[in-house]
Amino acid sequence: MSQRQMHGYVDGRPNVVVIGGGFGGMSCARALSRLDVNVLLIDRSNHHLFQPLLYQVATGVLGESDIAYPLRKAFRKQNNASVLIGEVEEIDLEKKEVRGFGRIAHWDHLVVAAGMKDNYFGNDQWAEHAPGLKALHQATDIRNRILTAFEDADYAFGEEDRDELLACMTFVVVGAGATGVELAGAIKQLAVDEIAPDFKNLDTSKARVLLVEGAERILSGMSEKSSNAARRILKSYGVEVLEGRRVMEISGKGVMIDDEFVPARTVVWAAGVTGSSLAGKLGVELVSGGRVEVKPDLTLPGRSDVRVIGDLAMIHDPRTGKEVPGVAQGAIQMGTYAGKCIAAELRGKTAAGSHADFTYFDKGTMATVGRGKAVLESKWLNLSGFPAWVVWALVHIVFLVGFRSRIAAMWGWLWAYLFFSASNEIITKPLRRDDDAG
Amino acid sequence: MSQRQMHGYVDGRPNVVVIGGGFGGMSCARALSRLDVNVLLIDRSNHHLFQPLLYQVATGVLGESDIAYPLRKAFRKQNNASVLIGEVEEIDLEKKEVRGFGRIAHWDHLVVAAGMKDNYFGNDQWAEHAPGLKALHQATDIRNRILTAFEDADYAFGEEDRDELLACMTFVVVGAGATGVELAGAIKQLAVDEIAPDFKNLDTSKARVLLVEGAERILSGMSEKSSNAARRILKSYGVEVLEGRRVMEISGKGVMIDDEFVPARTVVWAAGVTGSSLAGKLGVELVSGGRVEVKPDLTLPGRSDVRVIGDLAMIHDPRTGKEVPGVAQGAIQMGTYAGKCIAAELRGKTAAGSHADFTYFDKGTMATVGRGKAVLESKWLNLSGFPAWVVWALVHIVFLVGFRSRIAAMWGWLWAYLFFSASNEIITKPLRRDDDAG
Repeated sequence: MSQRQMHGYVDGRPNVVVIGGGFGGMSCARALSRLDVNVLLIDRSNHHLFQPLLYQVATGVLGESDIAYPLRKAFRKQNNASVLIGEVEEIDLEKKEVRGFGRIAHWDHLVVAAGMKDNYFGNDQWAEHAPGLKALHQATDIRNRILTAFEDADYAFGEEDRDELLACMTFVVVGAGATGVELAGAIKQLAVDEIAPDFKNLDTSKARVLLVEGAERILSGMSEKSSNAARRILKSYGVEVLEGRRVMEISGKGVMIDDEFVPARTVVWAAGVTGSSLAGKLGVELVSGGRVEVKPDLTLPGRSDVRVIGDLAMIHDPRTGKEVPGVAQGAIQMGTYAGKCIAAELRGKTAAGSHADFTYFDKGTMATVGRGKAVLESKWLNLSGFPAWVVWALVHIVFLVGFRSRIAAMWGWLWAYLFFSASNEIITKPLRRDDDAG
Repeated sequence: MSQRQMHGYVDGRPNVVVIGGGFGGMSCARALSRLDVNVLLIDRSNHHLFQPLLYQVATGVLGESDIAYPLRKAFRKQNNASVLIGEVEEIDLEKKEVRGFGRIAHWDHLVVAAGMKDNYFGNDQWAEHAPGLKALHQATDIRNRILTAFEDADYAFGEEDRDELLACMTFVVVGAGATGVELAGAIKQLAVDEIAPDFKNLDTSKARVLLVEGAERILSGMSEKSSNAARRILKSYGVEVLEGRRVMEISGKGVMIDDEFVPARTVVWAAGVTGSSLAGKLGVELVSGGRVEVKPDLTLPGRSDVRVIGDLAMIHDPRTGKEVPGVAQGAIQMGTYAGKCIAAELRGKTAAGSHADFTYFDKGTMATVGRGKAVLESKWLNLSGFPAWVVWALVHIVFLVGFRSRIAAMWGWLWAYLFFSASNEIITKPLRRDDDAG
């Protein structure tokens, strides 16, 4: 196979290749903006995604374009940066080359910010029935599934359709981290508040939403107090919270939870992620979650030219001794740090290996639990319920700035929240009913 | 197959079944809102679609949810109306029953507003390579194709990729009615204005956009003056306007135009539509375009209980003798007329067959030709260029009211137009490159 240089290189400049256009890769590439280098950002999809709000697209509150921003547009004004959309296949540590789709890119510095993928723990056949919520097309897929389930429930109204009706009206969210909690709350609210008035012959508010967590409590990454608050709120909505329960099997018919079979048409997987398969190409043994343990300056052990950042990196904060969590804030801080280190080295100010250790500034953790409620914990503040939601909303509005037409996104989002009138419940795929029950 | 009544029926009330939730069906169902009847609106998709702006979704100016509105939400407050999402399979004129997906609906009045579908004139195999632009998922598909073509062009930068590059950078729009003209202009503007600054290694403004029309002139439904104005504007953008030219073949490689082969990756079909296949189930001989010729009161010949409205109906205005055009205005007026006739009959005010003839109030015809330019003709006014666009914009803003969160849509749309900064160029399908050239 003939391999050719990827373009975007100005001769004589050092090349920095960044794999991944998520929070980590974006902020790293940004931190290199004033440098006399070639920055090549490679991603599979053509957009940066505001992942924390993906569950809102899955439940029809926001539209796709409200939380996705074209990568090329994001780097339009950064003259030293090129964007290439495609899948990286090889990382050649010896030749210092990244390869993919018949192209080749030489690096002087490599930053791997490839993120995580869904992990079905050896049951990849579940993916078909229980999509995860990492990418935009998955959010669209889940929205189509949820809305189609209600349509099919509306259609299965006779006595002989009772089983079908039950399955259509049952939604199982597997995994109760922030995404699972947010999604379960949002599905229940969609059923109760949003679409209930739209179905005149079906009481959608009776939809069962089950949140299944293998650990002893939901939001196990947060404090017990936050778990309890979230559980209380979810239960007040009518979400069935199952803790310490294991999902044994998922099929098109439903979910086996321990030894109880729950018929359910719609299942969402929020139970686990593992590192991108690119992690396996870095020549090191992976640690838990398919991640890469990095040195205190985020470099790959033995390689001062290769950095791993974001969710894919496993590192302990030197001050607290705690693992840096796989959240947007962590990725952003790592990206900025990595960018600054590379910049300092290229400017000759700092030798490789002599950087101050990366430290994580924990701004706190939060999760929304349905509309208008949240849990929040940080060093200074622990909140739950509406006050936590207000903080959550403000933070996310500020964060959303830079997305889409900034004001338009904010507006659509505020509108949806304030006036309880979202209208993105659009099924973009033609509805098919091949196996008619009638 | 056991067939059961569709639900939503209150016993003892007359049943009005409306097939299709487009402009015609919506306005008909609306016109029946104060009547003591059961209105059952059936559609395949769960949303009403603002079709005139579909080309803007296809070119990334608007998001899907800006021009689609859930049907159920639209009829939330109309107590006598039910919405059923599914495909109608049979129309039994003898039993007065509509059947589909194992269900059955009896009608006292039937309104068929099923609209049109793409017509490939016997070359259905072209559909795969040249999707039409009638439904929302097609707009998403076309957007994905257009944006992916530019990504692939960016990737095909070497000397040996010249043919590939050429094909990726060539866009063919087949058919130059309003949709084709609007789409060709929008694609060229996307290439020149929107994404050109985003591709640093590819001059997207060099993209060829070909508009191919079999008739002697584009916009053949409008006056020669309008055709000339539109052609002039399109050419000033750099769109190649081919009139009186026939498309002989479409494949994954390109388009055969008369005896000239034009390599092109992206082809859009805007050359023709034909009546929904439901037209064939009405027991009458179809007229040109697979349509149903109706009586002056829009009823099916010999059947005062069955009406055909919208694009599917062929009728001449009794005053002008001209065919009522297949545009939103025509459908809306027919829908309102049909609804009023049914209401009058059910109230016993008017006997079937005694209604005043349907007349079409022609508010004029327009087509945008890229951003900020349009052609417009009506009884009182003929405009082209920017003034026509201003009228077009005002009319569509007013029309958009009722869509999505009303102000949000308007805002997003205005924003995109005023500040030339649309950001919906989102590829929602994962990008694949199976047959690598490298």
